[in-house]
Amino acid sequence: MSRVNELLGARYPIIQGAMGVICNPELVAAVSEAGGFGLLATAFTEDPEFLRNQIKATKQLTNKPFGSNLFVMNPLALKFAEVLAEEGIRTVTVSGGSPKAFIPLLHDLGIKVIVVAPTVQGAKGAEALGADAVVAEGAESGGVQGFKGVSTFVLVPAVVDAVKIPVIAAGGIGDSRGYKAALALGAEGVQMGTRFIATKECIAHSTYKNIIVDSDETGTGLVNMGRFQIRALRTSLGERLIKEEDRTRPGFTKQVMEDTWIKGDLEAGVLPAGQVAGLISGIPAVREVIEEIAG
Amino acid sequence: MSRVNELLGARYPIIQGAMGVICNPELVAAVSEAGGFGLLATAFTEDPEFLRNQIKATKQLTNKPFGSNLFVMNPLALKFAEVLAEEGIRTVTVSGGSPKAFIPLLHDLGIKVIVVAPTVQGAKGAEALGADAVVAEGAESGGVQGFKGVSTFVLVPAVVDAVKIPVIAAGGIGDSRGYKAALALGAEGVQMGTRFIATKECIAHSTYKNIIVDSDETGTGLVNMGRFQIRALRTSLGERLIKEEDRTRPGFTKQVMEDTWIKGDLEAGVLPAGQVAGLISGIPAVREVIEEIAG
Repeated sequence: MSRVNELLGARYPIIQGAMGVICNPELVAAVSEAGGFGLLATAFTEDPEFLRNQIKATKQLTNKPFGSNLFVMNPLALKFAEVLAEEGIRTVTVSGGSPKAFIPLLHDLGIKVIVVAPTVQGAKGAEALGADAVVAEGAESGGVQGFKGVSTFVLVPAVVDAVKIPVIAAGGIGDSRGYKAALALGAEGVQMGTRFIATKECIAHSTYKNIIVDSDETGTGLVNMGRFQIRALRTSLGERLIKEEDRTRPGFTKQVMEDTWIKGDLEAGVLPAGQVAGLISGIPAVREVIEEIAG
Repeated sequence: MSRVNELLGARYPIIQGAMGVICNPELVAAVSEAGGFGLLATAFTEDPEFLRNQIKATKQLTNKPFGSNLFVMNPLALKFAEVLAEEGIRTVTVSGGSPKAFIPLLHDLGIKVIVVAPTVQGAKGAEALGADAVVAEGAESGGVQGFKGVSTFVLVPAVVDAVKIPVIAAGGIGDSRGYKAALALGAEGVQMGTRFIATKECIAHSTYKNIIVDSDETGTGLVNMGRFQIRALRTSLGERLIKEEDRTRPGFTKQVMEDTWIKGDLEAGVLPAGQVAGLISGIPAVREVIEEIAG
């Protein structure tokens, strides 16, 4: 059993990445039931009790371990940590900023911490702060990212060379080829986001899923949000924002995300996705995704 | 024997990428002698007889096959093709634009053609025009590139799914981990550039080699040259150009390249390199590089 399997309590070292408002209990439970490790997302969560209810709903659907992401930029994130502990969550990921305030608190609560890092410096810093593992997330990944732009192919071995804790690869992974390549680069597990949006169990609107399926490998670009960037699909609005023809930034709120990602309003906001959208050609059940990779 | 070995006539499916003015006969011969496939570069060549002399000098150093790159933007490129045929070169790569005018000519001359493509569309187009193989070159690679920004991790499997001819991976590869990962993604060979700059046999100035060795994975960025971009090291000039604090573009000529890359004048121009610079920590002999990968 690998170090990552042990850390997650999962059969396979395959994490479903946290994605705004579309990590519904059905998706998270389906990932864990299939042998992976589902994550609830809290970046846009505005109420600790909403998170508690999501955990309870997920537990109704699976007895297997699942986790949650804590997004550093959300001012309630430390409060969410207490809810996670009360509800028995054992492993979380921390992303979107420095994990400094989070690691000792989470460890005191008995929770293992996996830090998402886009650079060697971030990974080494996380290890020095006591992180139990790192996700080395390449710039081809979807959603929120920094400005360093280091790709998975270089980032993963560079981080593996720099830290002793387990390294989980993210960015560009969508099938068994990517999984095997990540392991060849020295990773001990993978995290995938976009691949899990285009599944039967994800609550994302069919429009969102279909745009992923229809995209080729050039179908995403980076939207500059000031403090960070978002890799998003080249919808009409996405294209205008990527090219900076339209410099109004879409609101980065729960309401905007729900309107766009769940209700399918393509002018409300952008649809985050990784370049791996170009490798995704169908909307299978979560179990099929995980079995193709781990089988 | 793989399709790529057969195409190259080499023991290993490992190509040394073409790099401006620093593919000296000693480097090219060393790669072929070690079982890989060295390439002369012609992007900045101004005289067909200079190329002929380079071929002759390389033949003095090895009996093994080697090739040459043809750079579409060089107006003499079609003329160079005749010299290559006269001197018995059997396999070339074509980069820097559409290979349309090159493939039938090269085939008539008895030369196999490998086209460098940064997208699936480019790879499919090359196959339709009769290319014998494609190099799928991810955006983490060094030197000249387009604006699509697709990473190796996504580009390689996407191209493998789209064409029947062999796919050679480039961008981000510097050691046996990258080689194995490229094969896991479906490639049948690899091309490496930056890794071969930092070798004993390369004519590049020690300053250039040492900056590669000292760089971390964030040590490169993209310099906008108008029609294309160059991924280059963050020297003082490189950093100013990457950040567009300095909008004068360095001359893209043989003289500028020689002054910078061979003479080590860091204010004359930029030093191209891929993100893989962050994985390179020494200046070994070419044979050590190839044996670590293929051994």
